[in-house]
Amino acid sequence: MWLQKEVVLCAYRRGFHLISHEVLKELPELYEFRIGMLNIFIKHTSASLTINENADPSVREDFESYFNHFVPENEVYYQHVDEGSDDMPAHLKSSILGSSLNIPITEGRLNMGIWQGIYLCEHRNHASGRRLVVTLNGE
Amino acid sequence: MWLQKEVVLCAYRRGFHLISHEVLKELPELYEFRIGMLNIFIKHTSASLTINENADPSVREDFESYFNHFVPENEVYYQHVDEGSDDMPAHLKSSILGSSLNIPITEGRLNMGIWQGIYLCEHRNHASGRRLVVTLNGE
Amino acid sequence: MWLQKEVVLCAYRRGFHLISHEVLKELPELYEFRIGMLNIFIKHTSASLTINENADPSVREDFESYFNHFVPENEVYYQHVDEGSDDMPAHLKSSILGSSLNIPITEGRLNMGIWQGIYLCEHRNHASGRRLVVTLNGE
Repeated sequence: MWLQKEVVLCAYRRGFHLISHEVLKELPELYEFRIGMLNIFIKHTSASLTINENADPSVREDFESYFNHFVPENEVYYQHVDEGSDDMPAHLKSSILGSSLNIPITEGRLNMGIWQGIYLCEHRNHASGRRLVVTLNGE
Repeated sequence: MWLQKEVVLCAYRRGFHLISHEVLKELPELYEFRIGMLNIFIKHTSASLTINENADPSVREDFESYFNHFVPENEVYYQHVDEGSDDMPAHLKSSILGSSLNIPITEGRLNMGIWQGIYLCEHRNHASGRRLVVTLNGE
Repeated sequence: MWLQKEVVLCAYRRGFHLISHEVLKELPELYEFRIGMLNIFIKHTSASLTINENADPSVREDFESYFNHFVPENEVYYQHVDEGSDDMPAHLKSSILGSSLNIPITEGRLNMGIWQGIYLCEHRNHASGRRLVVTLNGE
């Protein structure tokens, strides 16, 4: 059993954002899958997806601080600078964090830990709503 | 053909640990799959999974040293500090390394390179046994 | 419907390289899949795979500069040094970037964004052609 759709997220400001509910509300069919996998793929090179702590908003703020510190803007060796100082770091962060997630489905639900949530990692200063491809496969 | 189970690993000390055998001994059904994919998903936000060198233990020690150096404890900008100085770095390391692995199955075996092994990356000082969801899909 | 094959890439110099075309030319069967997933797995621990910007070559050069800066050679705490100064950083970069990609298939094509391409991340100074396992699953 396969199901695939494209989802356009709201536009988010630069930072890390919990989007579990926004994704799940697009997947009412999830309950039909007894065992399976959900893949979420982001069709952009300056935003990414990860799974992390879903309770304390300061975790998401610390993610933004950390990645700004360790993937800095304006490094002297950057050559790709024409699209703004946030652009090259956005590409790097996107590859460090990754473009897709695979989450197991069990008895009609995502089988994540209770503290796990899905993050959109928005690395640009002024981005539009990001486009995802969500693919469900299972039985 | 789908198969899914939850596996609870032994408790490991902080660091990087080869768990290929511990995972494979839970998957005697693997030999039935001619072509397929194994997904291993960790249900935690302060431990992660990766694939790397399976022979020299000093590689795993160098992983621990490197990640402690580049994802430091006690950064002045961390706000999420109530659960100990190892907690926020654990969340960050977990997203840098990732929560799940996908490994191809060929003729009843994981089709990894001969030097590749599965690592549990334990980022907390005092963790219990971590819970995995393993999902096999194939024919 | 499952399809799996091993692909040996050309040998690339150290750096980040766009390999979308080299992978796709091995997958003429892709057009038969209406919905599905492509997994590309690299069977090595000192090279990796990522998805990023496919147009401006300076992005790939900046990737090489950034990762050399933030995953340095000759750190005093490295113990695994017998295979050359590029070896331990190669293992670390490989786990930060990842060993496999999952890309959705829609109507016979990879459903990536128009700016997305598949990168081989070659972290060794003198590597041979890297071996990939490509697995297609879908309907």
